[in-house]
Amino acid sequence: MKILSVFLLFYIFSASVFAQNMSSPNGIFSFSFKVNDSGEAVYDLFYKSKPVLKASKLGFIIKDQPDLKSGFKIVETKNDAKNETWNPVWGEVKTIRNNYNELAVTLEQKTDNLTRKIIVRFRLFDDGLGFCYEFPVQDGLKYFTLLDEKTEFNLTGDHKTFWIPGDYDSQEYVYNTTKLSGINATKGKYVNEIAVKSVFADNGVQTPLMMKTADGLYINIHEAALLNYPAMHIFVDRQNFSLTSHLAPNAVGSAAFLQTPMQTPWRTIIVSDKAADILASKMILNLNEPTKYTDTSWIKPQKFVGVWWGMHVGTESWNYADVNNVKIDETDWKSLKPNGKHGANTANVKKYIDFAAKNGIQGVLVEGWNVGWEDWFGNWKENVFDFITPYPDFDVKELQNYAASKGVKLIMHHETSASASNYERRLDEAFRFMKANGYDAVKTGYVGRIIPRGENHDGQWMVNHYVHVVKKAAEYKISVDSHESVRLTGLHRTYPNWIAAEAARGNEFNAWSEGNPPEHETILPFTRLMGGPMDYTPGIFEIKMSKYDPKKTNQVHTTLAKQLALYVTMYSPLQMAADLPENYESRLDAFQFIKDVAVDWDDTKILEAEPGDFLTIARKAKGKNEWFVGAITDENARTATASLDFLAPNMQYVATIYADAKNADWEKNPMVYEIKSYLVDRKTALKLQLANGGGAAVSLKPATPADQKNLKSY
Amino acid sequence: MKILSVFLLFYIFSASVFAQNMSSPNGIFSFSFKVNDSGEAVYDLFYKSKPVLKASKLGFIIKDQPDLKSGFKIVETKNDAKNETWNPVWGEVKTIRNNYNELAVTLEQKTDNLTRKIIVRFRLFDDGLGFCYEFPVQDGLKYFTLLDEKTEFNLTGDHKTFWIPGDYDSQEYVYNTTKLSGINATKGKYVNEIAVKSVFADNGVQTPLMMKTADGLYINIHEAALLNYPAMHIFVDRQNFSLTSHLAPNAVGSAAFLQTPMQTPWRTIIVSDKAADILASKMILNLNEPTKYTDTSWIKPQKFVGVWWGMHVGTESWNYADVNNVKIDETDWKSLKPNGKHGANTANVKKYIDFAAKNGIQGVLVEGWNVGWEDWFGNWKENVFDFITPYPDFDVKELQNYAASKGVKLIMHHETSASASNYERRLDEAFRFMKANGYDAVKTGYVGRIIPRGENHDGQWMVNHYVHVVKKAAEYKISVDSHESVRLTGLHRTYPNWIAAEAARGNEFNAWSEGNPPEHETILPFTRLMGGPMDYTPGIFEIKMSKYDPKKTNQVHTTLAKQLALYVTMYSPLQMAADLPENYESRLDAFQFIKDVAVDWDDTKILEAEPGDFLTIARKAKGKNEWFVGAITDENARTATASLDFLAPNMQYVATIYADAKNADWEKNPMVYEIKSYLVDRKTALKLQLANGGGAAVSLKPATPADQKNLKSY
Repeated sequence: MKILSVFLLFYIFSASVFAQNMSSPNGIFSFSFKVNDSGEAVYDLFYKSKPVLKASKLGFIIKDQPDLKSGFKIVETKNDAKNETWNPVWGEVKTIRNNYNELAVTLEQKTDNLTRKIIVRFRLFDDGLGFCYEFPVQDGLKYFTLLDEKTEFNLTGDHKTFWIPGDYDSQEYVYNTTKLSGINATKGKYVNEIAVKSVFADNGVQTPLMMKTADGLYINIHEAALLNYPAMHIFVDRQNFSLTSHLAPNAVGSAAFLQTPMQTPWRTIIVSDKAADILASKMILNLNEPTKYTDTSWIKPQKFVGVWWGMHVGTESWNYADVNNVKIDETDWKSLKPNGKHGANTANVKKYIDFAAKNGIQGVLVEGWNVGWEDWFGNWKENVFDFITPYPDFDVKELQNYAASKGVKLIMHHETSASASNYERRLDEAFRFMKANGYDAVKTGYVGRIIPRGENHDGQWMVNHYVHVVKKAAEYKISVDSHESVRLTGLHRTYPNWIAAEAARGNEFNAWSEGNPPEHETILPFTRLMGGPMDYTPGIFEIKMSKYDPKKTNQVHTTLAKQLALYVTMYSPLQMAADLPENYESRLDAFQFIKDVAVDWDDTKILEAEPGDFLTIARKAKGKNEWFVGAITDENARTATASLDFLAPNMQYVATIYADAKNADWEKNPMVYEIKSYLVDRKTALKLQLANGGGAAVSLKPATPADQKNLKSY
Repeated sequence: MKILSVFLLFYIFSASVFAQNMSSPNGIFSFSFKVNDSGEAVYDLFYKSKPVLKASKLGFIIKDQPDLKSGFKIVETKNDAKNETWNPVWGEVKTIRNNYNELAVTLEQKTDNLTRKIIVRFRLFDDGLGFCYEFPVQDGLKYFTLLDEKTEFNLTGDHKTFWIPGDYDSQEYVYNTTKLSGINATKGKYVNEIAVKSVFADNGVQTPLMMKTADGLYINIHEAALLNYPAMHIFVDRQNFSLTSHLAPNAVGSAAFLQTPMQTPWRTIIVSDKAADILASKMILNLNEPTKYTDTSWIKPQKFVGVWWGMHVGTESWNYADVNNVKIDETDWKSLKPNGKHGANTANVKKYIDFAAKNGIQGVLVEGWNVGWEDWFGNWKENVFDFITPYPDFDVKELQNYAASKGVKLIMHHETSASASNYERRLDEAFRFMKANGYDAVKTGYVGRIIPRGENHDGQWMVNHYVHVVKKAAEYKISVDSHESVRLTGLHRTYPNWIAAEAARGNEFNAWSEGNPPEHETILPFTRLMGGPMDYTPGIFEIKMSKYDPKKTNQVHTTLAKQLALYVTMYSPLQMAADLPENYESRLDAFQFIKDVAVDWDDTKILEAEPGDFLTIARKAKGKNEWFVGAITDENARTATASLDFLAPNMQYVATIYADAKNADWEKNPMVYEIKSYLVDRKTALKLQLANGGGAAVSLKPATPADQKNLKSY
């Protein structure tokens, strides 16, 4: 009896006091969870038995209720596991494995008047940990207002960190690389360049957050499946290296209005001692819900050109006239004096259609086609665009017919000027207009201060807005490429027509600002792209802006060859050939790579990777026996090694290598390149010489008998 | 030379210093405007040479700019006049005269760095003054943020005032009648009954504001054409009897975001020594823009019954199930246990359709037909209704067919729960659903706290929302009756499908609150209805709520006969026979008046009127030789005199008089009535005996030979 009761006591104890432990499927991670003496929920994460996150707490601050972060008791635990594969509609790979062990812990907190329950669901993968909170239906929590979330990620040292300032409105920053102790958001690089920003604290940073420990361990923190909830930012304790979540606030000073049952987004910690594993991780997609779309055949990865770069380099304008005060419903557009620089005119668009048709490019984006651009920026204007009225020099029907006759699709542009309520008001009408006039895809933009006023780009209301737009677009079989929207969190698994986003500092910054330093593109895949594809708009051949105006010193901070490599290293199913057609037409040999490169993939190999330094990536075109390799470097020249052991056995391929010329240099001589073709096979290891800020792009296609006759082996 | 230069000097002086004077067309009003020594713009208004408004200033507070209310110079004045007639699409009269003299004064203010110009446009009618401000396009003002408007209405004494608290969110108050010095908004009658309110100051009141001076002069202050601007409230200086405008604020603490050129709403001051003239004034309509709708044949004044009162008296529910936590997109509605009280079920709606068809009533409103009512109230819930999913017991198609087969139209209900952004997001879909299912009119509601959060019912954003809904409805040929929306300002001239609004304390308050005192309906026409028709939902026959629950003490605070009279005194092109059909079926004799009364009029005569005390009104049915008279009183019994000299000459009419029985009393014996018919002609003067809280309703139709034989003369 005594022994039995001791055993019983022990059993009861263990459920509430002793740690819950778990390993990942192959054991490389272990995890422990417990509730400590103060009733705080605490978790630890270990990689190869070494601590990665130590004693990190969990909880919430709720309006008009006691804090929900201590006084917990474990009332139930449930284990589960999954090992399955699934195929994305489009992606970096054809098949994705979802393999994890799960622990769901039900925590109960009893105060004088209030009993509340939450479930923390932990999934431990072989690439890291994901967890979310669930609030089940319960008397103590029906409708409630969150003031903040208090999820800790307590690091074990003063890690090297690649960060941008925590900012509720903008992610368009250059990355800073400092130790955790050196984070200072208001003194971040080029912070004052950003027009609309809401940097909230010196010690605030955004996610995805990328780190490297002194021991060479790579750690990435982000979130997955951001739905009906604000984006998660991070407060950094620069003395203790402890990170705490911080939710983007709303117009009335709280964070989120919630109703049970609800589940927060998943907080993700991806870890490996190989940087390549971080990029290869599919955890964030695995934590998103499968799509419910029954037909996805209308969603088409594609390349596009566009009436766009001319406006960034200043030779063209979005606006039709040079006045500074217009009204959508009142101005007589035909009476305005055209400024002669309006890019979106019928003749110019036809040129782009011709170029696209001639070069097998599927889409032509046109920005500045619709009235309202004269005063769109900086006026916090609500009724700013109507999305259906073209300027007098843009013939909608004629261009629809012309594009159709050439087998090219025009891509719509909906710059909202961050006036989201205006966009929602007009959304059905705007999508009907698209369908009536031959448009199946739209690039949206949110430049400016958000309307509804008081809201932020990263707040719950806008998070719901972006998803609303994507869902409504799906009703019309329209795909969406959102710019200045919240950074991606893998929702394109659930909504595969959310085909790309910007949500970071893109190539355009090189045209008119301090630009993006050469290391920028070696960091973005470890940060922004962890949540999904980025419409980086690569492919600028005319590197220096002095070409357009001798007074300008702006330039793209890469060589031309690196711009080609970006089509492989900067994943997106929607890729722009961003430069002016004439800059391609004068270098059609280099442009050939852009014509050839795929945008949808069966497989991806991360051959070499170091955040902030270099990347070498190989990808297999979907449904074809073709591979493409991209190698890029920062401001340091290097030799990239691309072992081609992924090629099919028993056959030769033609490797066409687009490389920096010997004397190339991103600053001094960026546009010199050389193109060479060789016979290769799976035993070949390419050595690609990358200049300062340089790169190399390689296409690999099966060798024909003629190739085998004419080409040399590598 | 000297004389010439003196003359010149005098001329130049006069334009800038001397007063600008003006009279109304018949001279009954005079007006003077000047800029005083401090450069303040000042106006005076006189009625029959006596001052009504004295030395009242004008101006604005603008964000990040100097105040725009002093330092003015007159740079131009322009006089104009108009005398025309126009015909409204529907209304109290067939033809309206628009006759005014106008003075437009251009004021310029120069500070160190900034020159700004505004135009104040004054129109002087024979019933009062209207004026607005215009901000022309100019360098100093392009996009600007208004913090408040500082328009004064300086009264000449401590006038008797009929007021409700200034409140950015609610107008559903009982009126207080005090002197100006006695205004105390936070201590207004039943203030604490109002669920969602934003009373902003002890000395704040709303418009329309009705006053009576000690000399018996009636003064009404309101605004016309409230577009893209916040509603105007009033600060009362209770010592000096000076009123100053105060604009409803937005989510970010300012009042309005504006862009030149723009024009404010018109501020209206209607004055007469006859109370009847106040009610007969058409100034507010005259100051609104004519409609641009080319086809208005689809806009139909009508009577309707509805599945509605049962919910207010507690015998039915809007919600289908008695749960308190549902989610529009997730709840399995069929699995919920019906509470057995759901009013909007197919069989019950058919009963209403049958009743309507049998009694010549055109419309049947159904509230509670769509999912989401279980938790719609008080949770500040955003995704609260979808406006397209019916409850399991409401068969949309069957009811569409049934109504059509009976020649009756169902009226849609869109309660938004004040989640306006959700409503806009779903609006096209909701209207398409209506058209697909036979609905041409919708009653909307805004019960609750506004979403976008931080906004108010009266703020600029919501003012734009209400107009957006009406304009989008017109695209679908749908008419709108908006409840809990901003009070009307005559915009139904421009948007004649905005067919009615509530925007005040309606009859429903009698079912479940302290109710509306007997004087309430004698005040509303002088206040709320100055801006447009009110959907007051009259016609409750079963006066006491104890009929439904013996414990209840609530009641309608009128006699039954007064409920009939309201169909004449409470103008609306959309009139509800608000009670349950069984309460009509047991009193079909009284109900005959409701069947007979028109809702659209060729002419209106205000026979007797005293705000807070009594009203006797006669109206001629549009296109018919029929008149209807309504007489109501407050808690004091009285004899109303209705001289019938408006009847056509040389013919007799049958006057059917629905009157309080001798011993009727709104409290003790409200439901006794008598109906008598007489022969009358234009020489007849009816003496209608009204009980305490009583009324009388009279229909006047041409006498047939049979009538002349059978009926006695009055």
